Amino acid sequence: MSYIKSDFLLRNKTAEKLYHDYAENMPIIDYHCHLSERQILEDKPIEDIYEVWLSGDHYKWRLMRNYGVSEDYITGDRSRYEKFCAYCDVLGSAFGNPLYHWSQLELEKFFDCDFEINGKNADKIWRHCNEYIKSNRVTPKSLIESADVTHVFTTNEIFDDLSVFEEIAKKNFNFKVLPSYRADKIMNIEAEGYNGYVDRLGDIKSFDELKTSLETRLDAFIKVGARASDISVRKVYPVSSEKEAADVFAKRRRDENISESEAEIFKGYLTYYLMRTYARRGICTELHIGAMRNNNSAMFEKIGADTGYDSMAGDDTIENLSRLFDRLEREKSLPKTVVFNLNPKMNAEIMTLIGCFQSDEARGKIQYGPAWWFLDNKAGMEKHLIDLTATGHIATFVGMLTDSRSLVSYPRHHYFRRILCNFFGEMMERGEMTADIEFAGSVVKDVCYNNAVRYFDCND
Amino acid sequence: MSYIKSDFLLRNKTAEKLYHDYAENMPIIDYHCHLSERQILEDKPIEDIYEVWLSGDHYKWRLMRNYGVSEDYITGDRSRYEKFCAYCDVLGSAFGNPLYHWSQLELEKFFDCDFEINGKNADKIWRHCNEYIKSNRVTPKSLIESADVTHVFTTNEIFDDLSVFEEIAKKNFNFKVLPSYRADKIMNIEAEGYNGYVDRLGDIKSFDELKTSLETRLDAFIKVGARASDISVRKVYPVSSEKEAADVFAKRRRDENISESEAEIFKGYLTYYLMRTYARRGICTELHIGAMRNNNSAMFEKIGADTGYDSMAGDDTIENLSRLFDRLEREKSLPKTVVFNLNPKMNAEIMTLIGCFQSDEARGKIQYGPAWWFLDNKAGMEKHLIDLTATGHIATFVGMLTDSRSLVSYPRHHYFRRILCNFFGEMMERGEMTADIEFAGSVVKDVCYNNAVRYFDCND
Amino acid sequence: MSYIKSDFLLRNKTAEKLYHDYAENMPIIDYHCHLSERQILEDKPIEDIYEVWLSGDHYKWRLMRNYGVSEDYITGDRSRYEKFCAYCDVLGSAFGNPLYHWSQLELEKFFDCDFEINGKNADKIWRHCNEYIKSNRVTPKSLIESADVTHVFTTNEIFDDLSVFEEIAKKNFNFKVLPSYRADKIMNIEAEGYNGYVDRLGDIKSFDELKTSLETRLDAFIKVGARASDISVRKVYPVSSEKEAADVFAKRRRDENISESEAEIFKGYLTYYLMRTYARRGICTELHIGAMRNNNSAMFEKIGADTGYDSMAGDDTIENLSRLFDRLEREKSLPKTVVFNLNPKMNAEIMTLIGCFQSDEARGKIQYGPAWWFLDNKAGMEKHLIDLTATGHIATFVGMLTDSRSLVSYPRHHYFRRILCNFFGEMMERGEMTADIEFAGSVVKDVCYNNAVRYFDCND
Repeated sequence: MSYIKSDFLLRNKTAEKLYHDYAENMPIIDYHCHLSERQILEDKPIEDIYEVWLSGDHYKWRLMRNYGVSEDYITGDRSRYEKFCAYCDVLGSAFGNPLYHWSQLELEKFFDCDFEINGKNADKIWRHCNEYIKSNRVTPKSLIESADVTHVFTTNEIFDDLSVFEEIAKKNFNFKVLPSYRADKIMNIEAEGYNGYVDRLGDIKSFDELKTSLETRLDAFIKVGARASDISVRKVYPVSSEKEAADVFAKRRRDENISESEAEIFKGYLTYYLMRTYARRGICTELHIGAMRNNNSAMFEKIGADTGYDSMAGDDTIENLSRLFDRLEREKSLPKTVVFNLNPKMNAEIMTLIGCFQSDEARGKIQYGPAWWFLDNKAGMEKHLIDLTATGHIATFVGMLTDSRSLVSYPRHHYFRRILCNFFGEMMERGEMTADIEFAGSVVKDVCYNNAVRYFDCND
Repeated sequence: MSYIKSDFLLRNKTAEKLYHDYAENMPIIDYHCHLSERQILEDKPIEDIYEVWLSGDHYKWRLMRNYGVSEDYITGDRSRYEKFCAYCDVLGSAFGNPLYHWSQLELEKFFDCDFEINGKNADKIWRHCNEYIKSNRVTPKSLIESADVTHVFTTNEIFDDLSVFEEIAKKNFNFKVLPSYRADKIMNIEAEGYNGYVDRLGDIKSFDELKTSLETRLDAFIKVGARASDISVRKVYPVSSEKEAADVFAKRRRDENISESEAEIFKGYLTYYLMRTYARRGICTELHIGAMRNNNSAMFEKIGADTGYDSMAGDDTIENLSRLFDRLEREKSLPKTVVFNLNPKMNAEIMTLIGCFQSDEARGKIQYGPAWWFLDNKAGMEKHLIDLTATGHIATFVGMLTDSRSLVSYPRHHYFRRILCNFFGEMMERGEMTADIEFAGSVVKDVCYNNAVRYFDCND
Repeated sequence: MSYIKSDFLLRNKTAEKLYHDYAENMPIIDYHCHLSERQILEDKPIEDIYEVWLSGDHYKWRLMRNYGVSEDYITGDRSRYEKFCAYCDVLGSAFGNPLYHWSQLELEKFFDCDFEINGKNADKIWRHCNEYIKSNRVTPKSLIESADVTHVFTTNEIFDDLSVFEEIAKKNFNFKVLPSYRADKIMNIEAEGYNGYVDRLGDIKSFDELKTSLETRLDAFIKVGARASDISVRKVYPVSSEKEAADVFAKRRRDENISESEAEIFKGYLTYYLMRTYARRGICTELHIGAMRNNNSAMFEKIGADTGYDSMAGDDTIENLSRLFDRLEREKSLPKTVVFNLNPKMNAEIMTLIGCFQSDEARGKIQYGPAWWFLDNKAGMEKHLIDLTATGHIATFVGMLTDSRSLVSYPRHHYFRRILCNFFGEMMERGEMTADIEFAGSVVKDVCYNNAVRYFDCND
């Protein structure tokens, strides 16, 4: 009943064939997301459509604010039903916005609901989905399983309790939940509360002790299955010396104020140190560059981080990235790395840079990460594929992720797959690419799933 | 007879329907232009096609220079007829350039002339248009009325004589002419002749007196109907303190030289101060960022500013913009603001930033302004719509403007409308958007006109 | 047998007609490449397909590294046959990469080989091409002639032996080989071995002597037919004074270390000085901006420069470029200049800047150079045409080059011509451009060849 048909985004027969015969039924590795492993372990039944669809999704909140909806209906005191209806109303005319598509795909995929989402249909959708949730006893596990996910890489603070992952492993779910090691709380030395985070690692007095502790924790992550680490920085800083970084750390541990340039010294060295350490452990780095966070400080004080007040940074960071990679490469310590770039103006310069650091350690050892966050919309994904294929090799690409806090965002993988198949299908029908659909289809399957299996060593 | 047909830029039936049934006949609010209110008041008959089409349009001059035409035929001593023919000749092969389309649309819309513009047809066009102008007694008022314009927002120096607007109001034209308050002459403290501009506000000795005078003038603008102000800066500067700004101002008033960094201190504070003041008066800010002006100093000395020697700046300005908005937001003094960005590489970062400062004061309180100046061509407008819808909400958009010095540039509004309708029409026929054409059409009407009425409070 | 048909990249009948009737058979001026004039003069038979297709082409090497191929198969010890097969295997799935198209076009054009390139066909292709090479006695001259090239502009060090060009001229080939004057070795004052390069010009003690020597060499280049010079800088530096530059030069000649900022002072002045000198001699400047070279220092030490380890720089350089052009323009010493920009995010700002420095000295006096190096792929060329036509005049454009070290890369010219004809053809069939195909075709011919003849004064 909605506008989405089986040929959605597939503009010719070859594209349809590639999608339906090769892409659609491949399983999913979600190699970076922000799901809660505890929620998965506990597996409590979902209460209603609001909880699973709107309660934690700041992408959706931003769209509502843009439309002039009062914060009451977003993070405020209005009822779940009122908030739900407000969102449906906003979405109805959000033509071209990725949420306009995703939200519809989410309802269809997980709640068998194909009413077109808008203000008029809101009540009908509310009742349909809640009935579905109740009668099917929808839970986190059932959602993940119904999306045919084989691996979920959560993003974890390095001091997180890892026993949750052991308990999940014992449950013999159809999918694995594996932590990614994210030391950002230790990286962001200028942050309020920094020493408190360090204290959670033990009685750390020196930078040497910090290093030991970081590595001990990394080994613990690996023991419960971690294949990836995660670094998120606004920009890449110059690599400083260990001595300089240690001095800044010592100063901060004495609870003294540090300057912005001191913080950059520390971050520059720690990024280098962590990547070197990941290389030695055979762990992949997922390097996220380019978010400018918490722009609206008044709202940050009211409702905290990750609530829809981040944007793209504009910093020119390419020379520092070149120096970082070069230093690691000289020391034979450059790990497999997925570079996620948030600002599309830098796609081309980063793509061409990573082409200078490939090797026979892995196909596509340094990956240009998929269109991400603000970019994982149709135009952004298409631009990503164009930029990637212009100077890189599509057949080595590890494909899509969700980067999501929501249990129902897996349709993004299929959104990407449709765009990928259409990209190939259009080239094939135009005579710009082989007509051998078996061969093209095998590359599609690799990009959808097999490459990620190999790259993240998930073949067990 | 020219290549432009009724389905121009409309690539399927739905797009045609949206344009012809919903967009085409909506009136126009031209919420930012550089027309002369005095010329409109005086309403003298147009002399010939050269006067109204070429005499003041530096877009056209640039194209002629690019083609190697001597300045004699552009701003020099050649006859009107010779200049006209030279332009027609240049235009004939300017495929893909927006002027290639606009010029043709202008002649068809205002002078009932559909000869294809090129060197061969120049003489025929010259005679046809001049005859039309004479026999129809074409005047500024007749041109504006025939374009179905309801509101013209001129751009005015703050010391301009506002009585002209009162006189126009008395005339009961079919359209309103309202000034926009532009304090750039007071902003650009490093400029030669700066103190002369300040003196026109009265005997200003201190920054406090300057502020009083600025607000007095603003109230006078509002009294004659101003709904918008205008700030044009190459980049956004950090917000400095009032004390610092006052010191720089005092120094400049003593006719001392000020450094570039002192100028930036002054501009940084004044931008903040003005926006805060606009917020308090309920006046919208139109913030134009990214022009690098008067690159060719030899030509600047010969023929002055606004003659076709400006270009796009490349400065990374996003962090300062974030801080400026954040400061105003914390102080509950962020006005409705339309951000016009000239360098398309920054579209995405600005779009995502303004999404952090929306509120329920207005739908789309912070607007991402339309493709502007060097960008108001087909590809630029399409990119703008893609960028806007990827992270924003199309239904809140206030739509197009001319930003023009020419009385015949209103077809740009229709150029944009065709592109908008095609954007929707293609999504609709591809199944990427609702099939409900009534609903889609209502959004089209909003973007063409109704949103601007609401946003600029033109409902009287 | 491959996927490439006669309508390759031509998506409608008008595009096909424009290409086949107007573009396809125009000759080629390759106004910037890196061929060896000595190799052309010696004209030794090509040994095998590896030599002419893979041995020196670092574009292809990068793609192999990306796919995880060991360096043994790229620049290492593996046999020519093994390297050839490895490349074919990599190429088979490199959908969307320009090499995927170019490689196929190269084999078809020069070796009458239309097997689809992939791992399975590698052996067949190897045998076919080598047989063709042997039985047709393929040589550098035969390759250039079969591509219908009339002028080859090589890129030469200023101390190169120019007698080779005189000897070629005596041979009465069907094409001319003319050197371009590239003083980069003298520009890059910070480089190891700098004084050695200067010494090759003679016993240079002062900056005055350097200038004299540079001009003497330039005159020698002009005497053997040079029409163009070449400057390749990562970014454009501020124009410093001659005194400052001379001081840095003197310091360097004393074998003292110079700082990065001293190097920039020297480069800033020398760029200005060279361009002024070119203007006085009526020589065109080809200004290449934006390469960040030798990112991978370990590989640079192993296999040297120009081996596939360069990338796009991100530096904001537009203000310096504006000041440089303005200074030269004021002094009536701005030469005809083709600006090649490597980072596509800067297309628009550079395009609009050069529009400020046109004159009646030449149609398109300041050219926005074609999509180049990392950008000469389908999407890059299409973006270039869109950016060029949005703010420039297509009919003045001097068209494509190869910038290649390979004798078989001329199909890139036809790749560009197909894209150009398709760009026009689509506009024509959509009613966005004149329907006069004769006229459109004449512009096509100009862009393919005639404009370059005029611009580079090759009409003798």
